[in-house]
Amino acid sequence: MPTNVYDPPALESGTLRVIPLGGLGEIGRNMTVFEYDGKLLIVDCGVLFPEENQPGVDLILPDFEPIKDRLDDIVGVVLTHGHEDHIGAVPYLLKRKGDLPLLGSGLTLALVEAKLKEHRIKPYTMTVAEGQREQLGPFDLEFIAVNHSIPDALAVAIRTPAGMVLATGDFKMDQLPLDGRLTDLRAFARLGEEGVDLFMVDSTNADVPGFTPLERSIGPVLDQVIGKAPRRVIVASFSSHIHRVQQVLDAAAAHGRRLAFLGRSMVRNMTIAEDLGYLHVPDGVLIDYKKAKDLPDDQIVYMSTGSQGEPMAVLSRMANLDHAIEPGEGDTVILASSLIPGNENAVYRVIDGLTKLGATVVHKGNAKVHVSGHAAAGELLYCYNILTPRNVLPIHGEYRHLMANAKLAQESGVPAERTILGENGTVVDLKDGVAKVTGQLDIGFVYVDGSTVGEITDADLKDRRILGEEGFISVIVVVDASTGKIVTGPEIHARGFAEADAVFDSVKPKIAAALAEAAESGVRDTHALSQVVRRTIGRWVNQRLRRRPMIVPLVIEA
Amino acid sequence: MPTNVYDPPALESGTLRVIPLGGLGEIGRNMTVFEYDGKLLIVDCGVLFPEENQPGVDLILPDFEPIKDRLDDIVGVVLTHGHEDHIGAVPYLLKRKGDLPLLGSGLTLALVEAKLKEHRIKPYTMTVAEGQREQLGPFDLEFIAVNHSIPDALAVAIRTPAGMVLATGDFKMDQLPLDGRLTDLRAFARLGEEGVDLFMVDSTNADVPGFTPLERSIGPVLDQVIGKAPRRVIVASFSSHIHRVQQVLDAAAAHGRRLAFLGRSMVRNMTIAEDLGYLHVPDGVLIDYKKAKDLPDDQIVYMSTGSQGEPMAVLSRMANLDHAIEPGEGDTVILASSLIPGNENAVYRVIDGLTKLGATVVHKGNAKVHVSGHAAAGELLYCYNILTPRNVLPIHGEYRHLMANAKLAQESGVPAERTILGENGTVVDLKDGVAKVTGQLDIGFVYVDGSTVGEITDADLKDRRILGEEGFISVIVVVDASTGKIVTGPEIHARGFAEADAVFDSVKPKIAAALAEAAESGVRDTHALSQVVRRTIGRWVNQRLRRRPMIVPLVIEA
Repeated sequence: MPTNVYDPPALESGTLRVIPLGGLGEIGRNMTVFEYDGKLLIVDCGVLFPEENQPGVDLILPDFEPIKDRLDDIVGVVLTHGHEDHIGAVPYLLKRKGDLPLLGSGLTLALVEAKLKEHRIKPYTMTVAEGQREQLGPFDLEFIAVNHSIPDALAVAIRTPAGMVLATGDFKMDQLPLDGRLTDLRAFARLGEEGVDLFMVDSTNADVPGFTPLERSIGPVLDQVIGKAPRRVIVASFSSHIHRVQQVLDAAAAHGRRLAFLGRSMVRNMTIAEDLGYLHVPDGVLIDYKKAKDLPDDQIVYMSTGSQGEPMAVLSRMANLDHAIEPGEGDTVILASSLIPGNENAVYRVIDGLTKLGATVVHKGNAKVHVSGHAAAGELLYCYNILTPRNVLPIHGEYRHLMANAKLAQESGVPAERTILGENGTVVDLKDGVAKVTGQLDIGFVYVDGSTVGEITDADLKDRRILGEEGFISVIVVVDASTGKIVTGPEIHARGFAEADAVFDSVKPKIAAALAEAAESGVRDTHALSQVVRRTIGRWVNQRLRRRPMIVPLVIEA
Repeated sequence: MPTNVYDPPALESGTLRVIPLGGLGEIGRNMTVFEYDGKLLIVDCGVLFPEENQPGVDLILPDFEPIKDRLDDIVGVVLTHGHEDHIGAVPYLLKRKGDLPLLGSGLTLALVEAKLKEHRIKPYTMTVAEGQREQLGPFDLEFIAVNHSIPDALAVAIRTPAGMVLATGDFKMDQLPLDGRLTDLRAFARLGEEGVDLFMVDSTNADVPGFTPLERSIGPVLDQVIGKAPRRVIVASFSSHIHRVQQVLDAAAAHGRRLAFLGRSMVRNMTIAEDLGYLHVPDGVLIDYKKAKDLPDDQIVYMSTGSQGEPMAVLSRMANLDHAIEPGEGDTVILASSLIPGNENAVYRVIDGLTKLGATVVHKGNAKVHVSGHAAAGELLYCYNILTPRNVLPIHGEYRHLMANAKLAQESGVPAERTILGENGTVVDLKDGVAKVTGQLDIGFVYVDGSTVGEITDADLKDRRILGEEGFISVIVVVDASTGKIVTGPEIHARGFAEADAVFDSVKPKIAAALAEAAESGVRDTHALSQVVRRTIGRWVNQRLRRRPMIVPLVIEA
């Protein structure tokens, strides 16, 4: 996938090597490898969710190829926060080496541990907090509080003799966050004074002008909608968005409603969040959803998963009347969430289904019930000006986001030659205050499908796309091994195909004739005979039916 | 698909029956049938574009089933404007009866005729204009100018002894349209005075508060972007959006640039538009794209198709360097278009590709380069208040749009029981100023795929989805017809499947054993034996590999 693949030079002593394995040119599977003096440090290890042209794929992992023979050199894995695109691939990394130490904040590690439990992995963990400094091999780590759409996110400053790197993880700069935990600009200023040699910075919203609105600006909207709702209220959001859920809880309590969590990940995450003190549940507000049904309709709020229209999540099932709770006339549904590109049709199907059942649906298209978790252009400029980094590597974003971020860096005074537009696998070497691209590794997609990891190839996906668009035709012919003459067949079966099987009656004699001709000229090999079948029916289907289904010729000997 | 299907009563004399066959609960395939005194009038006959869960489908047509035996009763087909979702299915209707008269404005009919020419159909047409009145059988038609994102759109008032219907087609109320042709509110007021019994009204933007901005507000933005562009400019938009193209032409001329059209439909439509006087080309501005290459980069604007990321259209091909014109550093690309839900990933892929080539991409996400073609809530309220219709049937929209429109009607004073929320196939009878739902026909999707129309079923699409997500496994076994014993096989082939074929070696003995057992107990029927194969391998694949591919057992006798 990357362009111009070439090997980097052997790593010189005193040089820090930085290789992003995922998250550049895509939103997801964030992972960066740092190498110094023979030791490796990893920051984040997330998954990417597949697009519609990757059918049947469950998850996409970072490509571990460049580190697969270096696992013993890894001194630690820093996880900046608990979102799937930063922690989701940890189980797959630990399956390769189970005792890699994981470092992260309390909430981050609790979410990782819950995930690893499902994979029956018990990790080695080290909880860290903002302000803390840890030495891991040659890497001197300092953790810095940042604000994001999940609590307890950390940036990490990595000091080596080659210089200091600041990696933000995902962040924004909400100046009145619900938990009072600001992105620590005093620490940024101190690092800036010391000298940041390489700034690796979240690009997700770099092309969004201005500033991300306050999370707390959503509270009054939720309060008003829930206050006016005549019957039941159902709120859907991301199951890790603890502050969003907090605001729903508070609004429910303010209007004398009780709240029930719905959906496995919502229940799991909110239990963790409450246990660890990140979610503050007003007394007597929570109720089990099975008991909630006995309450009057105007005294209940359901907090559920499914805000992206995921077909198996609670909200979709409700819209299809395939859930114990059936929305109806007078109910209010709030999608307090973003709309991730690619999910539009699924989400609109859910909105339509709910509307049809009589519910009023409130969403970011008609009310201010969502704000982003990422810093917009205005916030990023503050960072550049406070940090005055020597070199910048925009991360976390598709190409247009990385480019927009690089332009902001340049506008703030970073020289163009010191802003690096990288791809996954780009090798950046840092020495004497200068970061340079010194290589480009060949990085691929690693697909998880069912119980397999990395076995599905792009060729398989191409097959799937053809099968999904056009279906297939199989032609079975049994031939005599010695004479090559047809014993049985051709039998033709088609699936996912418009026409009835009878349409093939007219091509059967053509196939038989082609095979007879081949047999007469001495062809016996079943593979060669299969090709004769493929060509004959392929041409016919293409000309007669104007289709290009997958053709599966099966010539077998009897 | 519709809920609660039931037959309407026989149509009484003096009653007007209205049946929308498409466009309700969806954006597309708009078509309504009006019946009075044994005669039928059709308004619009469009296509719907498939979603990702309808793989391989080219187009979706309205279901002609309810009129297929009534073609001789049709007195005419009124086409309100030239967009695909209003005219795209005309060729398929005319293939059933070629001499149905088509009525529409000059531009609408020119676009329909160009389309029909590709299908080798020469239609009977009658050009009509705003203000014109025509009697077609029992239907007294009056055409009224409306403003939309294509010129020359018409609403139609249909008078019968049962009452008057006003069908808007798609419209908005731009108060300073480029061509000065306003939605004719004086005519609406006159119809309101006379008494509108049924108002059939565009719902597309009914859930958008306020007013659609002026089309001419885009001009200064285009002018500024093109004026500042250092090198080539490429603008993509819908190939029927003549006023948008006009503004690009004017901006090009103002900055001393020449303009070349790119893309088959763009060239075709703009030729028609210029010939008929809808597009005003400043002298000497147009140039053939082959000659444009010789111009200096800062003297050219390309006007192209592909604003929705369609993979075969010009803009996608440019982004993939698969077009004679290769965008590069310093070029400016403007997507002067909407982003239709479902197309986001495709469009962002194109934007990223162009950005990577060095182009600056301007789109509605970062500049005011698009306005909608449909009336927003504020405009619709004007209509309700000017018309004071007795009954309202919101059309053109997904369910949430129809619902939002019905609520606007009610807020303006139309009683709730006089606003009809219909589905495709809902039968509405109008008599004595009262419109009532009297039936619900069973309406399906009619899929066009390659050269077939209506042969692909929902079951085929389900097969395709399974094939596309999971691939398939075929198992071939040749058995002796008399003994049921295996002669050859089982051979197993899988496609679109993660594992190599060798993974199946361990299941082959199980299949052989299951078949032997069945043969021993006297089973000879190949269908029954196929089921044995399907169960055996299906269970194995599901348990061992945790997959659910399509399983195609092929037991044949030799």
